[in-house]
Formats: sequence, C-alpha cells, structure tokens
Amino acid sequence: MPWSPFRKLTPYADAAKQRGVVVHHLNIGQPDIETPPSVLAAVQQADIRVLEYSPSAGYDSYRRKLAGYYQGVGIDVAAADILVTAGGSEAILFALLSCLNPGDEMIVPEPFYGAYPSFAVAAGVHIVPVTSHIGQDYALPPIAEMERVITPRTRAILICNPNNPTGYVYSRAELEQVRDLCLRHDLFLLSDEAYREFCYDAPYVSALHLAGMDQHVVLLDTISKRYSACGARMGALVTKNQAVAEVAHKFAQMRVSPPGLAQLLGEAATDLPAAYFDGTKAEYHRRRDLLVARLQAIPGVVCPVPSGAFYVMAQLPVDDTVVFAQWLLESFQHEGQTLMISPAAGFYATPGLGRQEARLAYVRNTEVLSQAMTCLEKALAEYPGRTA
Amino acid sequence: MPWSPFRKLTPYADAAKQRGVVVHHLNIGQPDIETPPSVLAAVQQADIRVLEYSPSAGYDSYRRKLAGYYQGVGIDVAAADILVTAGGSEAILFALLSCLNPGDEMIVPEPFYGAYPSFAVAAGVHIVPVTSHIGQDYALPPIAEMERVITPRTRAILICNPNNPTGYVYSRAELEQVRDLCLRHDLFLLSDEAYREFCYDAPYVSALHLAGMDQHVVLLDTISKRYSACGARMGALVTKNQAVAEVAHKFAQMRVSPPGLAQLLGEAATDLPAAYFDGTKAEYHRRRDLLVARLQAIPGVVCPVPSGAFYVMAQLPVDDTVVFAQWLLESFQHEGQTLMISPAAGFYATPGLGRQEARLAYVRNTEVLSQAMTCLEKALAEYPGRTA
Repeated sequence: MPWSPFRKLTPYADAAKQRGVVVHHLNIGQPDIETPPSVLAAVQQADIRVLEYSPSAGYDSYRRKLAGYYQGVGIDVAAADILVTAGGSEAILFALLSCLNPGDEMIVPEPFYGAYPSFAVAAGVHIVPVTSHIGQDYALPPIAEMERVITPRTRAILICNPNNPTGYVYSRAELEQVRDLCLRHDLFLLSDEAYREFCYDAPYVSALHLAGMDQHVVLLDTISKRYSACGARMGALVTKNQAVAEVAHKFAQMRVSPPGLAQLLGEAATDLPAAYFDGTKAEYHRRRDLLVARLQAIPGVVCPVPSGAFYVMAQLPVDDTVVFAQWLLESFQHEGQTLMISPAAGFYATPGLGRQEARLAYVRNTEVLSQAMTCLEKALAEYPGRTA
Repeated sequence: MPWSPFRKLTPYADAAKQRGVVVHHLNIGQPDIETPPSVLAAVQQADIRVLEYSPSAGYDSYRRKLAGYYQGVGIDVAAADILVTAGGSEAILFALLSCLNPGDEMIVPEPFYGAYPSFAVAAGVHIVPVTSHIGQDYALPPIAEMERVITPRTRAILICNPNNPTGYVYSRAELEQVRDLCLRHDLFLLSDEAYREFCYDAPYVSALHLAGMDQHVVLLDTISKRYSACGARMGALVTKNQAVAEVAHKFAQMRVSPPGLAQLLGEAATDLPAAYFDGTKAEYHRRRDLLVARLQAIPGVVCPVPSGAFYVMAQLPVDDTVVFAQWLLESFQHEGQTLMISPAAGFYATPGLGRQEARLAYVRNTEVLSQAMTCLEKALAEYPGRTA
C-alpha cells in the first residue's frame, strides 16, 4: 500500500510555519469558498431524536432529490440508479470492487488523481496508465494507444472529467471515442465527475450523456467540490446497469449506511437555486485566469489553459519538482512567504514522468494566489536547480 | 459478494405493514434510545464557515479526547494510536486490509456479525469459522479447536466482545487463552468492541487489557451503540502496533478524511458524564431480563442469558427459522401484530448450522418487547412447522 505521494512534504511545511514563514497552500484541493449557510442550516436545524441508520443506499428522499439534480444537468437517472456513498472515495472503492475482479486491469489516462493507486490496491486490481501530454494540453491520449494496452484482463477505463490534476475537460468527440472503445471491448467506463460544475470554456459532457452506454457507465460523484462541503463525505455511485447496482448495493449493506447528518446537508443542497453555481464558478474562473496569466508570464514556465476543475498543471524550469517543492519550503522565502505545490510525479504511474511538472490548485482567493505567484517567480529566479 | 442474509425478509415485512399489521422489529440493532441532546447540539450549534476535510486520521482534538475516553475504561492508548473511521464498518475493512494479505485466513467464532463475510470478500481474505454452541451459552469454542484450524495462511483471529449476535461476554480466562494462542502463532487479534458499555453481569475485559498483546491487538470500535448514534457513522481503529497503524493510515489517506460533522458529535460525546451510561445500561438490563424471562417461559424455547450487548439468541421449536420468520410476516398475526426476527443461519459460515436459532434484539422498550413476546408465544403455538 503506497503512502500518499505528497505526504513527504508535510513536515517541511510544518517546519516552515514554525519558523514563522507563511505557506500558501496551492497543493491541496480544499476550497476556501463558504459552504452555503442554508445547507449547513438544514443539519443544524434538523429535529433529530435518535440519529438512526439510514437505508444502505441512502435516504429515499435524498436519492429522489439527487435524481432531480441529475435530470437538471441532463443526466437521465432515477432514484433507484443512485447509491449514496461516504464521499466520492467510497463510490470509487465500491465501483472497483463491483466492476472488477481481483487481478483485473483498468486503463487510466495519466496524470491521474493521486489516490487512484491506493483504491486499486484496496480492490486488488491493476492500473494500466496511458499518458496524456502537456504538449497536447493533457487531452485524451490517442485512442489507439488505449486500445493497444487492452488485454483479456482489462475490464474498465477510469477517467476523471473535468480532470484532476490537469483541469482538462474532455470533449464530446473524445468521449465518443472512449465510448466506442468500451463498446468494442465490452469495458466499463468509470467516470469520476467530481468537478462537473466547474467548466469555464468547454461545455460539460457527462459519460451518462453518451448514447448507447447505459450498461457500461458508472458515474462516481461527490458534493465535496460542488458545494464546498469536502468534510461532509457525501458522494454517490450512479449507474443504470442493474447488475453493477446490485453488487454495489451489497457493499453498501456491508457498511450499513452512509453518513446520516451529511445526507441532510446533501439533500438541502439540491434545493439551492441554479444561480448558486454562477457565483462560485465566476470566482474560480477569475482565479484560473489570474493563476494562468501569472504562470505564463514567468520565463521558462509552460502552462496550458485548463478548461475546468480548479487545478493548473505547469511545467517548471527545474531539475525535479519533488526537489524544488521541498526547497520552496526548506530554503526559500520572499517577504516571509513561500508556497507549497504538488510535484506531478505522484500523479503518474509510469516511472520518471512528471518530474518537471507540478499541480497548483486555485482554491484560495486572488490575493493569496497573486502573492504565491510572486513567490514562485522569485523562487524560480533563485533556485539552484533551475534548468532553463 | 453475498447479499445481506436478512434482506430476503424485508419485502414480507413491507407487505405485512401494507396489510395494516404492526411489525415489531426485533431483527435489527437500531436502538430507540435518544441520542444525547447535548451531543447533537454540538453539531447543531457549531460555527462552521467552510466544512473542510479533517485530517485523514480524524481531528486531533477528537483523537485526544477519545484517548481520554479509552483511558477511562482502562485502555492505555494515546491519540496517535487512534484512527477515526466512518463507523466501525470502515475500521473492520481497514483492519482486514492492513493485517491480512489477499488469500490469508482469519479465524472467527461463529455465530458472528452478519457483515463479516462481506468485509472478507472486500478484502479478499477467508473466514475460517469455529463454532460456539448454545449448549455452552455460546462461550468461546475450545481453544484446541481454534488451534487445529490454524494453517500457514492464518494471520488473525476476529472476535466480537460483547458478542453480536449471541450477547456472550468473553471472560478474562477465555481472552487469555486467545492471547496465548495469538502469541504462540504470531496472529493478530482483531477485537470488535462495539458493545463495550453494555455488560450486565460479567465484567468487561478489552483485548487491550491483556498484557503482552500490544503488538497483536487491533481494536475495532464505534460510537453507534455507545451513544445511540448509529446514523453518524463514527468509529475508530485503535492499535499500538505502529506498523499496522501506518498501513491503516495509508488507507485513511486514500479516502481523505472521515465524516466531519459526525466527528463533532463524537467529540462532544466524550464530554458526557460517566453516569450517562448508568441510565442506558439500566434500561437495556430491564429489557434483557424481560425478554429472556418471556422467552424461557415459552414451551420448547431454549435461551441462555446473554451477559452483554443487546441481543438474545434463542433456539426455537421450529423446523427452520428462515421459514418461520417468513411465516411470521406472511401468515401470522395476533391482534393486528407480528414480529420480525433474524434467522441465525446468516450468522454461521458452516452450512446447516443455526437453523433452529434466531437472534432477537432488545432495542425497543419493554412494552413493545412484551407485545412481541406475546406474538411469539401465540405464533409458536400455531406454527405448522413446530417440532417440539
């Protein structure tokens, strides 16, 4: 079982803070956006005498309202197609356990969400990476490359769309290529759509928007980012494939029920007006524009414009972003500040890839981002391992 | 992956209710005891702007207070030994994933908690049952029988103490036999102590009270029953074995954090006065006494007196409790009432065992229990499959 790839940096960040240095955390996906007060109020004003188990699949009322939410984004599912989970994390675990047998393989475009390898270990399955490249803005790898790695053990393709860590939003054409591949080889398409609401330039296309894929798609979802409620641990596994739904339901029965208080929160969130997202999306959009503009202005930095989520992947003019990230925390400060970034090696399965790339999250306000970018600019000018 | 063994009865219960029959649910471990209002208030009055991820191991403040709670029950652990989990369920899963490799074996006295086989499937490990018998009040099976089934793949013994479903509380002498066995064969002792607070006649002995076992014990815990907060999904994995703690922590990082709101609840619960348990324990004690007295008064029923938890296992004078449980829902009523019981076959791994036994939970008040016992008495008099 692997450690989180980013854990090694934490002691250096703690040490920097103890020296009085302000560390701007661009390494994590924890937004500073307020959790909607009306949503918290639903929990805080609920009349609860006994906090009982909910049904294993989640409260019926919440599942019905979630179905309404999905209908609102053009995903035609019913309450019965939805299994409420403890965060998107549990949805990922249940999907792997339900769709793959131990020893089976799953194709995943890399760079990918850093926790996927741990879920693969937990479920006893193998990740087969296919590489996206910064030169192509981290677009979907050529479908022929994905087809080439299919073996008799391949059971699924796992995508994250909009993508963490790249911010890339897959186009309908790309998703239709993936669909055709899944149909040709009878593969599941596990689609992690945690960042659905955050598409700035590109239209959002869900795996469940694809015609002919009802029996193949398992959607992995969470309210963590949608409503800035990461700590609630409230997610969903959505599929119209009844055989998969049935197995996933057995895993849900195993742990009796998903978190109860968080379901009240999730249900209240479905009552937010559609305009709620206008505000948060506009805020992230501003942040992205600032972060990308500042990155592109730094000599030697290569940074595609990400169309979604709230991450930027940048290529830095350094020997190794693992070394650089540690140096930022250990040996650098500018006016009492520094920043923490995520070295991209942790997002790749292929050894050696991502050594010059890092992920930066724009989950802090523009003032913080601006200060962090000034730090990065100064740091790259000073860094002894600078390469370009 | 197996279905919950009790799922088949649910449609019959629903149908009975639709016919207007009152179904007394003695089949489930969902107490009617009020969740302490001060504990709910801690969540409901919390000042939350952004519901952020907690640390993967849980909030430090909660872990420190949990350590204090454990110290209070004579378990000498520090905050660092505690991993906060999404219910006891996640603690069970993480323990299996952390202590056993796929294909390894785990010895479990049967009858056992009905979800253990599902966790074993999820973790890819095998349950090796050793049978407890009603004739011995479901005491620990002879240690020689447990030793006989040890193979090179055996890595752990899993016990539930106080026991679900039998209510048996293992004595210190029994636990010391288990300890010696674990030490002789270098096995982990996974100890599910969800019902710690509910010992009526026997003293409670934790696996972590056993000398010399610090490197072997993994305690699986939950606040579900302790504070009647099943829906919170708040548990803990506790171990002084640093290697196990480290691997479990990696699984915790995989799912980022345990439920946040429920941690506030759990933390507030540690502030309840020790006298809190006097009230709930006395209530369950009354219920046990009533249920056991009523069961023992029914001709042909065999019912040991359980010393802990809130379950009774009884042998009924019927052909098959699966058939009888369905008949109770489908074909029987007494003054518009019937009851739902858990056929014990679902608690055994050995095929054919438990066919005359059923588990009855005393999680409803004495009036309900009394009505349910009247139903059972009448039902057994009428049941066509009666055997004695």
